[in-house]
Amino acid sequence: MAGEREIRELTVDLGERSYPIYIGAGLLERAGALFAQRGLPVKSPLLLVTDASVADRYAGIVESSLRAAGYAVSRAVVPSGESSKSLGRFDDLITAALEAGLDRRSTVIALGGGVVGDLAGFVAATYMRGVRFVQIPTTILAHDSSVGGKVAVNHRLAKNIIGAFHQPEFVLYDLNTLTSLPAREVKSGLAEVVKHGLIWDAAFVEWCDSNAQRLLALDPDALGYALYEGCKVKAAVVSRDERENDLRAILNLGHTIGHALEAVGRYGELLHGEAIAIGMVGSARLAARFGYAGEIAETTERLFRKIGLPVRIPAGYDTEAIMKAMLHDKKFMEGQMVFVVPTAIGTVEIRSDVPAAWVREIVEGLKEEAGVR
Amino acid sequence: MAGEREIRELTVDLGERSYPIYIGAGLLERAGALFAQRGLPVKSPLLLVTDASVADRYAGIVESSLRAAGYAVSRAVVPSGESSKSLGRFDDLITAALEAGLDRRSTVIALGGGVVGDLAGFVAATYMRGVRFVQIPTTILAHDSSVGGKVAVNHRLAKNIIGAFHQPEFVLYDLNTLTSLPAREVKSGLAEVVKHGLIWDAAFVEWCDSNAQRLLALDPDALGYALYEGCKVKAAVVSRDERENDLRAILNLGHTIGHALEAVGRYGELLHGEAIAIGMVGSARLAARFGYAGEIAETTERLFRKIGLPVRIPAGYDTEAIMKAMLHDKKFMEGQMVFVVPTAIGTVEIRSDVPAAWVREIVEGLKEEAGVR
Ligand SMILES: NC(=O)c1ccc[n+]([C@@H]2O[C@H](COP(=O)([O-])OP(=O)(O)OC[C@H]3O[C@@H](n4cnc5c(N)ncnc54)[C@H](O)[C@@H]3O)[C@@H](O)[C@H]2O)c1
Ligand SMILES: NC(=O)c1ccc[n+]([C@@H]2O[C@H](COP(=O)([O-])OP(=O)(O)OC[C@H]3O[C@@H](n4cnc5c(N)ncnc54)[C@H](O)[C@@H]3O)[C@@H](O)[C@H]2O)c1
Ligand SMILES: [Zn+2]
Ligand SMILES: [Zn+2]
Repeated sequence: MAGEREIRELTVDLGERSYPIYIGAGLLERAGALFAQRGLPVKSPLLLVTDASVADRYAGIVESSLRAAGYAVSRAVVPSGESSKSLGRFDDLITAALEAGLDRRSTVIALGGGVVGDLAGFVAATYMRGVRFVQIPTTILAHDSSVGGKVAVNHRLAKNIIGAFHQPEFVLYDLNTLTSLPAREVKSGLAEVVKHGLIWDAAFVEWCDSNAQRLLALDPDALGYALYEGCKVKAAVVSRDERENDLRAILNLGHTIGHALEAVGRYGELLHGEAIAIGMVGSARLAARFGYAGEIAETTERLFRKIGLPVRIPAGYDTEAIMKAMLHDKKFMEGQMVFVVPTAIGTVEIRSDVPAAWVREIVEGLKEEAGVR
Repeated sequence: MAGEREIRELTVDLGERSYPIYIGAGLLERAGALFAQRGLPVKSPLLLVTDASVADRYAGIVESSLRAAGYAVSRAVVPSGESSKSLGRFDDLITAALEAGLDRRSTVIALGGGVVGDLAGFVAATYMRGVRFVQIPTTILAHDSSVGGKVAVNHRLAKNIIGAFHQPEFVLYDLNTLTSLPAREVKSGLAEVVKHGLIWDAAFVEWCDSNAQRLLALDPDALGYALYEGCKVKAAVVSRDERENDLRAILNLGHTIGHALEAVGRYGELLHGEAIAIGMVGSARLAARFGYAGEIAETTERLFRKIGLPVRIPAGYDTEAIMKAMLHDKKFMEGQMVFVVPTAIGTVEIRSDVPAAWVREIVEGLKEEAGVR
């Protein structure tokens, strides 16, 4: 089928730091050729960072392709899961980079989901004050995390609090890798896909609604299109505001509540996409408090239910703990609460005048009663 | 005396990231006014990072001045010494920043020598992906480290290997703080002052030669002039090549050998300036091997002796350990040894064709025989 062979290409437009995103099936096998084509130095060793679930399936394919193109590549594997986004793992990877002999012209490669991308990206941003970086995302969620250059690790007290802006040389997205994704991860990733529609493109939200079943079944045509559209929104926003001075903050729709829920669940209970799905329902309810159409909240909630994402805060999550977690959030500034609030499906505004009392009420209202969903 | 009241001002010219350096006596007391004048946000809390030896003497002065100008400031104190440039201390400071409620508009202040500057600077570079940063150097050596935006922490296997480029908002250099510097630190700092002459300005090297005693006695006029000239060279080099693509590497004169000696001495035996003084003698001998005037090595060695700096590798330092430490150096690239080599007093070149055998011979030749200096 034509769709499976097709390579979609997009550009993240950042002047001299512009870079392409390639989306298609079977791209891992072509990694070596693409590295050479993009001019990545062949004399300096590469470090491929991946996680335990991805390594066995895909690292060998990438390494063989790179070696065939003349590159020397070492592999560093971290445990799967959010807990690897820590300073401890970061330290281990710096050790691995030194032991592999990486120099200033070397490239760090992230092969995996957003965890590996954020962690390896922070290594690339800081090793010798910055080396080249390539993103090879293997989750749906990573269509978001691999584009835009935000890299980070977590701190005990706050998520993503230690980080940098470090753009990749390019993003190589092989749709074939997504076939092994656990169903729960597929749904979690679709939360960020829908987010890109909710902030920027009402027609794409409708398309997601009509094609939810195809996406859940990992239909390659539907998936290729959805990831292309999602990346397109991300690229458009990032091109306009790389360092989050203003516009880029709209990408945080649902994330203020979402990050707090992840923290309260100790980064183990809710997946990132699940947490922000609940957060986006919360933001839509905030929109209603500001007088925008109640239909925003209804559509948001219905679409996430259709995908099989949670839309309620799990029973047992303490409201005060959630509120407290939000106070350490980057979007809390100068004593006021800042939220991204939808004004209609496909468009949002940033409000810095959100009363904490409203947020508390909405958090309370989103709580699942024990046994009920 | 006029010299003591005078404020010397310089600009580091980096387009929209340009910033001033203020050098003068009694500037700590004026910190608050300068922060306000430079437009640093008053609503967001500040974090003052300092070390145990500096805190008691000077932190209170800075904090009072800032509070009088309306700023809220918290203090974080790390132990004195190179070992504080670690990921562990970095982690502690991120905790301190979170607990002090720093937000994206906050400023991190480094009050201390190069250790505090590099460490606090890396916190400023990465906390929330980068916040504002002010350098208040309190050592002579820090005239070098506080200008140019290189910030870093060390790794067990290599010095300064984890870092970023993060320019300060400004540099505030109060000459009064230097009066409490231990004599050995004074000499160590003068090594970098002389380095700036050796790479850029023969007349300034001569001036240092003629004024060595005044500098060692911390004569405020001589010191103010020397720091101004040293910062001027640093600013000129950094303005031309912020990210060390080429020219900036000349600032590493003496550092390849110097860093290796610091590593072999476990960062506790030789001070940074002492290590690079020996390294600069080594580079000057390398110059002779390349056919440049033997007088370069003689002048370099004589001047460092006059200042009271070591010019020989301490007995017991193993040549192979030194060579091995150099292989992890950032300036070792693609299998070749890269060195900054003087071609005359006041000018250098970057050579990437230095045979490791020559380096080994020079290291051997620099070794102090037990009991002899
Ligand atoms: N930098 C950004 O702009 C940005 C944006 C959004 C999210 N994020 C971050 O991304 C992270 C979440 O990313 P994620 O959801 O991809 O999580 P993840 O990286 O943990 O991957 C999810 C799980 O799927 C496994 N996996 C990955 N690829 C697989 C494959 N092809 N087949 C089978 N299993 C596979 C992983 O081992 C992991 O267990 C969070 O830390 C979040 O903060 C960053
Ligand atoms: N970033 C750069 O471009 C750059 C350039 C050169 C050096 N450096 C780094 O700078 C560091 C060395 O800096 P340093 O020599 O200033 O070391 P330092 O910061 O350790 O200070 C030296 C000692 O003097 C004490 N001290 C500082 N100010 C004092 C004062 N006014 N009175 C009394 N005691 C005081 C300190 O507590 C410390 O014990 C090294 O880590 C080196 O890598 C960085
Ligand atoms: Zn997200
Ligand atoms: Zn130095």
